[in-house]
Amino acid sequence: MPEQPRDSVGLVRPQKAHFDDPLPLACGRTLPAYDLVYETYGTLNAERSNAVLICHALSGHHHAAGYHDEGDRKPGWWDAHIGPGKSIDTERFFVVSLNNLGGCHGSTGPSSINPESGRLWGPDFPMVTVVDWVDSQARLADHLGIERFAAVIGGSLGGMQALQWTLSYPQRVANAAVIAATPKLSAQNIAFNEVARQAIRSDTEFHAGHYANHDTLPRQGLKLARMVGHITYLSEDAMGTKFGRDLRSDDLNFGFGVEFQVESYLRYQGDTFSNSFDANTYLLMTKALDYFDPAAEHQGDLSMALAPAQCPFLVVSFTTDWRFPPLRSRELVNALIRAGKSVSYANIESPHGHDAFLMPEPRYQDVFAGFMRRVADDLGLSAISTEETAHAL
Amino acid sequence: MPEQPRDSVGLVRPQKAHFDDPLPLACGRTLPAYDLVYETYGTLNAERSNAVLICHALSGHHHAAGYHDEGDRKPGWWDAHIGPGKSIDTERFFVVSLNNLGGCHGSTGPSSINPESGRLWGPDFPMVTVVDWVDSQARLADHLGIERFAAVIGGSLGGMQALQWTLSYPQRVANAAVIAATPKLSAQNIAFNEVARQAIRSDTEFHAGHYANHDTLPRQGLKLARMVGHITYLSEDAMGTKFGRDLRSDDLNFGFGVEFQVESYLRYQGDTFSNSFDANTYLLMTKALDYFDPAAEHQGDLSMALAPAQCPFLVVSFTTDWRFPPLRSRELVNALIRAGKSVSYANIESPHGHDAFLMPEPRYQDVFAGFMRRVADDLGLSAISTEETAHAL
Repeated sequence: MPEQPRDSVGLVRPQKAHFDDPLPLACGRTLPAYDLVYETYGTLNAERSNAVLICHALSGHHHAAGYHDEGDRKPGWWDAHIGPGKSIDTERFFVVSLNNLGGCHGSTGPSSINPESGRLWGPDFPMVTVVDWVDSQARLADHLGIERFAAVIGGSLGGMQALQWTLSYPQRVANAAVIAATPKLSAQNIAFNEVARQAIRSDTEFHAGHYANHDTLPRQGLKLARMVGHITYLSEDAMGTKFGRDLRSDDLNFGFGVEFQVESYLRYQGDTFSNSFDANTYLLMTKALDYFDPAAEHQGDLSMALAPAQCPFLVVSFTTDWRFPPLRSRELVNALIRAGKSVSYANIESPHGHDAFLMPEPRYQDVFAGFMRRVADDLGLSAISTEETAHAL
Repeated sequence: MPEQPRDSVGLVRPQKAHFDDPLPLACGRTLPAYDLVYETYGTLNAERSNAVLICHALSGHHHAAGYHDEGDRKPGWWDAHIGPGKSIDTERFFVVSLNNLGGCHGSTGPSSINPESGRLWGPDFPMVTVVDWVDSQARLADHLGIERFAAVIGGSLGGMQALQWTLSYPQRVANAAVIAATPKLSAQNIAFNEVARQAIRSDTEFHAGHYANHDTLPRQGLKLARMVGHITYLSEDAMGTKFGRDLRSDDLNFGFGVEFQVESYLRYQGDTFSNSFDANTYLLMTKALDYFDPAAEHQGDLSMALAPAQCPFLVVSFTTDWRFPPLRSRELVNALIRAGKSVSYANIESPHGHDAFLMPEPRYQDVFAGFMRRVADDLGLSAISTEETAHAL
């Protein structure tokens, strides 16, 4: 693998776990059986105490680090932070990263076969929530023999899952990192999600979600959804720096073709996404975002909702993130403090907007790596030698 | 008219002016002949010195104040600021408000007949720019016998027209008010416009703009465009205060129907708009926004571009406007100062985002009314008595 950098986890291979125990869901329905696709990086120690769970965001998946084959040009989506010597140091931690239920990268979701009907789930796949995901992740932990995670970590929608872990399974989380997230979506956040859903659902190729049966895809709708989403991932400044008002060619053409570079970029992003992501999954993921609101059962009192949490928290926000602005992270931090929890908070200066959580910003890396060193030290984890590893799996 | 408030201009009637002189456009094409629909409020004085031009925004039109009939429940779109005793005091000023070329409210546009072909213009209507609009407005001024406007005033895209007036016809503008505008769109602004255009143009009912010939409308696309636009008109706080995470009914239904109030509101706004606004016009208006950039011909030096302006300016921005944030107004103000122009600037505290420019915020009214009093005083305008009025028209 001459092309892969030395701090990479290298070649990785997705694995699949099958679950036969029916999973009761927040919507009232039950998933009879399901698969979860996941990857692991690093080595589980003999005490099984060094496992870290990575939770993915809206369009994420299990492939968080490393490469799938030697020709791979792009590593996993969080490769900047997972690897030997990186923030999540795979020489100390055993990292688990999965594709969530309802996803379209191998875990059971709308594009899977419903075992009860023998046909595609499609739009009949049940609505899944962050709470459901955490339940399914706990079963994956059981399957892997992990009683307690050294840390559960996620950015954006992944941060919501990390937070939910501390509430659903407080005794199974030693630490939680909630990055670029929010304790609940704002009306504006929901509004953007609703535009995305309307775009997909009004595409004439959507066929009420049964597009696969019509041998088609709602590409235009998904493209629009992604374009809207993408605007909210970047800061206005980042977009300005990247594209400004630069034209594609020298002159205005006074037509509706691509004129400005930013139009070209967005169309390209939208097209690529619409050919690789499942529309029904996108709909489910946006709904999971909208529904997340742990304070709702406590008359909106977030610190009451956080009472079950037992572990120390790291909360990170980014100055130019306008999707989930620093203010939303501070809401969470303040509620954690009111609830008497231990929390470290960093607001990282970054020009990259919401997407900053994916990037290798030096101060972000310092904060993140410092937190993870503390996690390792608290648990007495050192670099893993071969003798110490767990053999049962 | 017992229903109409005392400070209303009362019943108003649109008028139409026909122009036979071909209008050369920035895109290189020429409009052979055209109509402009307009309304006037107040009385033109004998010196013809008290005329004020109102320029409309993206989805605006000529009906800025008063009522069209006695059953009318909603007055014109800027009724909060135009009327006897209001900021633009119709007891002192003669107010002209028109529908721009390319519009869909009576002025020549895509839904008009092309006199050369005898068929609907549709998508063949030429691209019109802010510069073109100002040229056509100058001809309307000629038609009305107005050599020089006491003030040219506009909000948002209307503010760009007011600014352009001071550059295209500096000797014909005594004052300019540029409200909630920007000297040019940012990459993010263009990106949102591009999503709107893609939504319309990818609607299968769009038929390359010839939807009228197919006896249909691209309703879904226009609805999506409006939904996206609407999110950018409101501040995040205003949306939060108005809707928060309130549900339409008591419980989540875990489906894709309307659950949150904000979804219901956006869908309603989108539906209403898509039944009343022309899609080809919407496309043209967004392009006019994108193209506006007076500094472009001066290597991006805005103060150089502003050199021709001769009049005093009022520039107003609103604290929570994130479509055209205060920073963009300050760019204009700073460039005006560098260019040695006279400018008053107010950044108005308002929770209402971009839409604040339409609303009767007290400090905004104070600033606006104060500016207009100064305009009237400078020109020696007093309340108009009947004897003083112009008779020629």
